Amino acid sequence: MKLLFDCAGGDHAPEAIIEGAYLAKEKLGITPYFVGNSEILRPLIQKEEENHIFEATEVIENTDDPAVSIRRKPNSSTVVGLKALASGEVDGFLSAGSTGALLAGGLFIVKRLDGVKRAALPVLLPNKNGKTLVLDSGANMDTDPELLVSFAEMGKAYLENVLGIDNPRIGLLNVGTEEGKGDKRAQETFQLLKESDWNFIGNVEGRDIFSGNVDVVIADGFSGNIALKTAEGVVEYLLGAMQKNMAKADLAPEVMLQIKTLLGSIFHDLDYNKQGGVPLLGLKKPVVKAHGSSNGEAIYNGAAVLAKMIESNMIEKMSI
Amino acid sequence: MKLLFDCAGGDHAPEAIIEGAYLAKEKLGITPYFVGNSEILRPLIQKEEENHIFEATEVIENTDDPAVSIRRKPNSSTVVGLKALASGEVDGFLSAGSTGALLAGGLFIVKRLDGVKRAALPVLLPNKNGKTLVLDSGANMDTDPELLVSFAEMGKAYLENVLGIDNPRIGLLNVGTEEGKGDKRAQETFQLLKESDWNFIGNVEGRDIFSGNVDVVIADGFSGNIALKTAEGVVEYLLGAMQKNMAKADLAPEVMLQIKTLLGSIFHDLDYNKQGGVPLLGLKKPVVKAHGSSNGEAIYNGAAVLAKMIESNMIEKMSI
Repeated sequence: MKLLFDCAGGDHAPEAIIEGAYLAKEKLGITPYFVGNSEILRPLIQKEEENHIFEATEVIENTDDPAVSIRRKPNSSTVVGLKALASGEVDGFLSAGSTGALLAGGLFIVKRLDGVKRAALPVLLPNKNGKTLVLDSGANMDTDPELLVSFAEMGKAYLENVLGIDNPRIGLLNVGTEEGKGDKRAQETFQLLKESDWNFIGNVEGRDIFSGNVDVVIADGFSGNIALKTAEGVVEYLLGAMQKNMAKADLAPEVMLQIKTLLGSIFHDLDYNKQGGVPLLGLKKPVVKAHGSSNGEAIYNGAAVLAKMIESNMIEKMSI
Repeated sequence: MKLLFDCAGGDHAPEAIIEGAYLAKEKLGITPYFVGNSEILRPLIQKEEENHIFEATEVIENTDDPAVSIRRKPNSSTVVGLKALASGEVDGFLSAGSTGALLAGGLFIVKRLDGVKRAALPVLLPNKNGKTLVLDSGANMDTDPELLVSFAEMGKAYLENVLGIDNPRIGLLNVGTEEGKGDKRAQETFQLLKESDWNFIGNVEGRDIFSGNVDVVIADGFSGNIALKTAEGVVEYLLGAMQKNMAKADLAPEVMLQIKTLLGSIFHDLDYNKQGGVPLLGLKKPVVKAHGSSNGEAIYNGAAVLAKMIESNMIEKMSI
């Protein structure tokens, strides 16, 4: 299995990317390929992969306009990488670079699956018993009910094939649990999901994302993004308040340490950024987006998601 | 100043309501009036207020359909109370009963201000330096840009008149901070707010609600509610995880106690339910909704909001 790693995207590129790629080679048996500036990459990769470099001299920055940069920077690692994937030279592509450029490039170069109107970017958040998949997390604005139903289908396929959750519970993000709640889009989406033969459990509220009573939360990209960033805001606020109050409380050093250990593990679970990568759902070929701050381990985790997508034939199963 | 207290709504009615009303009488010098079943209320109120009871024999439950119950239960405390307010027998009305019924009744009986298309329900959330007002928090679905601008105007009036924040910073809840982000509604609302002469600071994200860099966050009721309930969900999740990890960590009792004290004060700040009440903005007369779980102190805090709205002539200032 040939996995291509974008060595120009991410805060710790190229070192962390290459470290993750070799972890994946060692643990998963994949064959790593690299895209980036070969002069920089060559000294960092092993002899066995010396011919596994796709040359890319340009870099798309997070500040670049995604759609424009895909056209203006044909030699960027994003464009070169996605082209190698589209042509079949590699089986999967992982990038920790600009999300927008990866999504725009994915749609433009790798193309959408037949029957899928747009691609969705999911996010995995922790809940009391495991993880909740929320999609879309912000790739799609001005969505309609049919599109939200296609998100449900893609989310279900991802959970079943990659995370091994059979017949996942699907909920619709809404302002209340009763049927009839919400705006027109939510009301119409509810009816469509109700008619499906999936395990649709009805409307869910923002709090249910973390409760463990739903596996896939369907959201338009606007409110999905609001939920995600609000959650981040609460966590930041709590960490700040905790630090301030600890300083004021004048605790013994060993108590401070115990509290910090306690908090550390909880907030680690909450930090979805560190959990590897998420697939861009709806594309014809497997693409995984890793967070910009990914270290080697996170890149390895992202590669594992990519490998699982390929092994399980998830995309073939989705295109009925 | 005559304030009317709904003694039939809320988990701790009528005792907590009456306790709060008398606290407000003592501390704020208001004149309390009560609406509810006089047989129940008479033994609980003081001699001076024995003629301050509005008789209401029916109760609107949280499970009743709001709009229907307003028509079918004309002798409910909500309907009788709002009628007393509309007719000018009292100056303000506070209820810890059904939010939906209070909103439906407010629109139907007290009526909207001229020029206001719908009433909004704000929520005050803590931030690093104080409080952030988010509106609408769920009263309005399928909103349009003009309506969102009217929310901004009402939120600004509330902060200036009741909370004493001059020229508050107004932000639009969106998926990113750059101009042009979001769905069509958000993009159009941005332009309208930009043309206003208010202190519009641009788009804000979910995380900014808690950051302290914005005073009023404008949201359609759908995404405002998603933000609010997601925040609740994160807090519940964190408290649960904290308890589980503390139990596992086998901490010394005094350390447990210190951690609990630390957490207690932080989560108290976060619990907007306990912070008194919020006004229904956009009505012709002052109405405050207190949380269903309000104790006497919360009812007193709600009465203080109501008194401030009346003293400052906030509503008159809003109807230009």
